[in-house]
Amino acid sequence: MDAKLIVDEVRLTPILISDPPLLNTQGVHQPFTPRLVVEVITRGGVSGLGETYGDGVYLGLARPLAGALPGRMVTDVNGLFALAAETAGAPRQDADAGVDASGLRGVRTADKLRLSVVSAFETACLDALGKTLGLPVHALLGGKVRDEVEYSAYLFHKWAGTDDWGAALDPAGVVAQARRFDREYGFRSFKLKGGVFEPEREIAAIRALAEAFPGRPLRLDPNGAWSVETSLAVARELKDVLEYLEDPASGTAAMAEIAARTDVPLATNMCVTTFEEIPRAFAENAVRIVLCDHHYWGGLHRTRELAALCRTFGVGLSMHSNTHLGISLAAMTQVAATLPGLHHACDTHYPWQTEDVVTTRPVFRAGRLAVSDAPGLGVDLDREALAVLHRRWLEDDGTYRDRDDAAAMRAVDPGWTPSRW
Amino acid sequence: MDAKLIVDEVRLTPILISDPPLLNTQGVHQPFTPRLVVEVITRGGVSGLGETYGDGVYLGLARPLAGALPGRMVTDVNGLFALAAETAGAPRQDADAGVDASGLRGVRTADKLRLSVVSAFETACLDALGKTLGLPVHALLGGKVRDEVEYSAYLFHKWAGTDDWGAALDPAGVVAQARRFDREYGFRSFKLKGGVFEPEREIAAIRALAEAFPGRPLRLDPNGAWSVETSLAVARELKDVLEYLEDPASGTAAMAEIAARTDVPLATNMCVTTFEEIPRAFAENAVRIVLCDHHYWGGLHRTRELAALCRTFGVGLSMHSNTHLGISLAAMTQVAATLPGLHHACDTHYPWQTEDVVTTRPVFRAGRLAVSDAPGLGVDLDREALAVLHRRWLEDDGTYRDRDDAAAMRAVDPGWTPSRW
Repeated sequence: MDAKLIVDEVRLTPILISDPPLLNTQGVHQPFTPRLVVEVITRGGVSGLGETYGDGVYLGLARPLAGALPGRMVTDVNGLFALAAETAGAPRQDADAGVDASGLRGVRTADKLRLSVVSAFETACLDALGKTLGLPVHALLGGKVRDEVEYSAYLFHKWAGTDDWGAALDPAGVVAQARRFDREYGFRSFKLKGGVFEPEREIAAIRALAEAFPGRPLRLDPNGAWSVETSLAVARELKDVLEYLEDPASGTAAMAEIAARTDVPLATNMCVTTFEEIPRAFAENAVRIVLCDHHYWGGLHRTRELAALCRTFGVGLSMHSNTHLGISLAAMTQVAATLPGLHHACDTHYPWQTEDVVTTRPVFRAGRLAVSDAPGLGVDLDREALAVLHRRWLEDDGTYRDRDDAAAMRAVDPGWTPSRW
Repeated sequence: MDAKLIVDEVRLTPILISDPPLLNTQGVHQPFTPRLVVEVITRGGVSGLGETYGDGVYLGLARPLAGALPGRMVTDVNGLFALAAETAGAPRQDADAGVDASGLRGVRTADKLRLSVVSAFETACLDALGKTLGLPVHALLGGKVRDEVEYSAYLFHKWAGTDDWGAALDPAGVVAQARRFDREYGFRSFKLKGGVFEPEREIAAIRALAEAFPGRPLRLDPNGAWSVETSLAVARELKDVLEYLEDPASGTAAMAEIAARTDVPLATNMCVTTFEEIPRAFAENAVRIVLCDHHYWGGLHRTRELAALCRTFGVGLSMHSNTHLGISLAAMTQVAATLPGLHHACDTHYPWQTEDVVTTRPVFRAGRLAVSDAPGLGVDLDREALAVLHRRWLEDDGTYRDRDDAAAMRAVDPGWTPSRW
């Protein structure tokens, strides 16, 4: 095979990006959140891009993997899993102790951490391969089945911050936020991050959205903060307006019990976050929709495999998002374009991010992004912006290098603990 | 994207290839069996190859699909399924009436027929893409995870024919056949096609193989010819020597009942032949091993999806084979090389085929084929051989254009019907 497809060098750049004070069950987004930019540079001089979580634990896995990559082909993405397992060494103990922003996607395990790192390397390899061959990443995944990918507005209760969105702490604030998303991005679907206030207030917010935007798909996601009975009570209240209810309660057993007692479709990115969790959740009919996420499912190929699993079992597919930049948005759009069963608008935090490391911000039209046919992911690195954000990471005293929504909340309310209803 | 990747022309060449008189539950292989060679030629002048079933019903679906392909990109293989559905028109009635060689892979449906046709087009597109880019097909599927693919010897009870294998109608004949496979190909695993004679005779054949080749993996596949009780009796007799028992009885319910009552692993290429059949079979623990087959699962990408499903549910993976030539063998080897969970040697009829349409016959060493890193599938078309085999098809009066193992059996024994035990 062509020597120009051999990996010559891998560059890892941890960065801190500014983030508005978005509220969730685990606390509040800190002013800065860590991301990791992965560049895979081939002997042909082509640079491929990937992006993933940037906390120290991910960096600790990414560094040895980066060291092992030179000399391998960028085509060899199936081999990344074994390579990551080899280079990772013994799994570190990472049991969830108390509140942890990683709890937003279920229990953190050594496997999940490794897959989240592999995904950025896989994306970077595919980007480099596509750029070398003159093919978009979707063509390397069998080709797009749609020309546009639909995204949903991601609504948050939030404090006023240095951003220009202002506070949103009641139904009127949520509707005002939604109106801006509607006006500036054209999103048709709205998802509200819940589990922040008592359920009645969040029900009222969804009701207000339903009145402001009749007939639009609405979602509510309290990140597992409710009991089974609370979840069922919310489902009863909102059954006429919800597209789906996402992770109302925590764990497959609770989700299955809720699912058995309501007609409101349940979605998840917490009780089904790995292939290992699928058999039980599907057997117990715990969820009707799974949110894929190439970051933590292990990349774009694995996302397509998850989609095949969902299709086979008649489970719907949507897409999850954590705070991310334009590299990930491009990867999300490329893989989403290839998934035949993607019948729900994808989540994205992207409009909340005012900083980026790509040269051109993508433009949403009618809530959709056009699927790029440019080589690779279709985005270019803004090295100046990258350097600025990396410098922020270098200069950080450790406060923000590991995302900690609870710490940010306790800085304001020292006695804070997550609420459960 | 590059105009040289646009499909310029598609050539379909139905052929008849000679086949030895191999016995199975549906009768006996006819002297000639139909195959279809698909060539996808790009504007860049590259020809990609695919191979599939060649019966009239497949040709009837392949022709309109071939007509619709020019102008599309060879990268666009995910789009072939919708295109095939569009061009197929209303599904023809194809209920299984009586004995039908297609019964060897479960009930024939319009969906399955279409997927078997799409697979050859997908393979041909990937071959053309790989040849254009200078990349092997495995690299287009994420890269190989092994350098060699192991195959098993496919043993048959058979009549003496024009081939040089002679008859094999008893345990001694089966062992003699196995010895030649061992000597000439180095196969480690042996699979005996069963359901031909009373189970006692087939048990004796497996016992004789176990004595002749101690410790080697042995498989027996009666294509669903046995009752649950017979299957359990055979499993009891052979439990110490069988790697797996393949499709002892017909249908998921019977397989599940057998599986519940024996420790011998059950494998299938009959009760799980489509994604639709997976949820029930897996829920009922009907099989421990699924035999993939890119021909009828819809191509190489779909085969990888099937592998992901099996991996997720802890179900083993092996590979099925019908009579095939070197194009399919190359495709089987390329995709098998990318499947991490492939822990059983793949089936292949290939050693039974003395004719081929590729210029160079692959050489098995120690039962294995090296995974080609040459562009595309790594095989070239022998146009002279193709013309000869196509002429045979043209000159055929219809006797062999549709595979009919029962007709071949009835030509010898007019009152023959399939046996069930």
